[in-house]
Amino acid sequence: MTAAPSRADRRRERTRAALVAAAQVLLAEGRTHAAVLEITQLADVGQGTFYNHFTDKAELFDAAVEDALERHGALLDELTASIDDPAVVFAHSLRLTGRLYRLEPELSQVLLNSGLNLILLDHGLGPRALRDIKAGVAVGRFRVADTHVALTAVGGAILALGALLHAEPERDVDAASDVLTADILRMLGLSDDEAARLVALPLPALR
Amino acid sequence: MTAAPSRADRRRERTRAALVAAAQVLLAEGRTHAAVLEITQLADVGQGTFYNHFTDKAELFDAAVEDALERHGALLDELTASIDDPAVVFAHSLRLTGRLYRLEPELSQVLLNSGLNLILLDHGLGPRALRDIKAGVAVGRFRVADTHVALTAVGGAILALGALLHAEPERDVDAASDVLTADILRMLGLSDDEAARLVALPLPALR
Repeated sequence: MTAAPSRADRRRERTRAALVAAAQVLLAEGRTHAAVLEITQLADVGQGTFYNHFTDKAELFDAAVEDALERHGALLDELTASIDDPAVVFAHSLRLTGRLYRLEPELSQVLLNSGLNLILLDHGLGPRALRDIKAGVAVGRFRVADTHVALTAVGGAILALGALLHAEPERDVDAASDVLTADILRMLGLSDDEAARLVALPLPALR
Repeated sequence: MTAAPSRADRRRERTRAALVAAAQVLLAEGRTHAAVLEITQLADVGQGTFYNHFTDKAELFDAAVEDALERHGALLDELTASIDDPAVVFAHSLRLTGRLYRLEPELSQVLLNSGLNLILLDHGLGPRALRDIKAGVAVGRFRVADTHVALTAVGGAILALGALLHAEPERDVDAASDVLTADILRMLGLSDDEAARLVALPLPALR
């Protein structure tokens, strides 16, 4: 049995969350050179509290990226929880990620500014995508020569879609996300027809 | 008839090239916050000459990335000039780019630090890759629903390969580059067998 968090625990957790949220704003704005004082002011917490939670700014920004990725991954897991076919789960996750670039531009900017290193993180989206690719291979839906290389290709492609959508605000996000997803499904061994069928399935609602 | 460059022209060109080379070193080291004085010292040119060539540091770093991309693209064009099949040209370009990440780690670091925005640049590698994809489509070798989305997926995947190779120095660069290239060829509509055949072809020698 876990003890209920004390009032001090809850306050401590709120302070940490406020610092992480402030760091996500700064990451989205590309302002990672902000001073600790500026970060604590943005978070509306005392400057001294910073070091109760993080040894330095790099640790805070790492935590901020990790938190953004975890939230995105948890959302995708929740939205696809009732789906059995791993190819549909993966297709839905890619199509939803494309749409989220437009719905959550700040989160997207965090992802894009963190860039290619994200693909290699051993937490957040990388392991989830690897899990989904392996599940698809296990049931014979996907065919890949090297799952890590496939994950690299998929991760790079979906990040690049974010960069494209950011650079071209007028581009149809649904169409671009679905075409890119169909391209990726074909890369994973699905036929043209099957890839087209999967990206035409209705998606769970976002928000 | 173009007049031969004067001695002053040549000296001016040498100074600019030295500044660009210094900026590439700083980009590779992630030190884009270096002061102009530090850049001119690294380039071994007078501090005052900087502003004869660039209005600010951002313009120099843009020029440095553009120069690195142009050199890489020109090398790929040269190495594939005698090949008629656009699918082979594209496969060779991807396989050689993977290998160049290991052969030219500094250039690679410039590319990786510049990241996803590279895919969207209207000069350098983006237009070359788009040209090659369109050539493949024109002769019926590639099938893509949207060439710009395909370019985005390919660009993201090949950049992510660079990140993977950088993060995993022990990984076999030839194998990883060829598997990723076969994945991309499959995405572009080639069969498994044809993709496997193309990535097994002998490559032109680098260096």
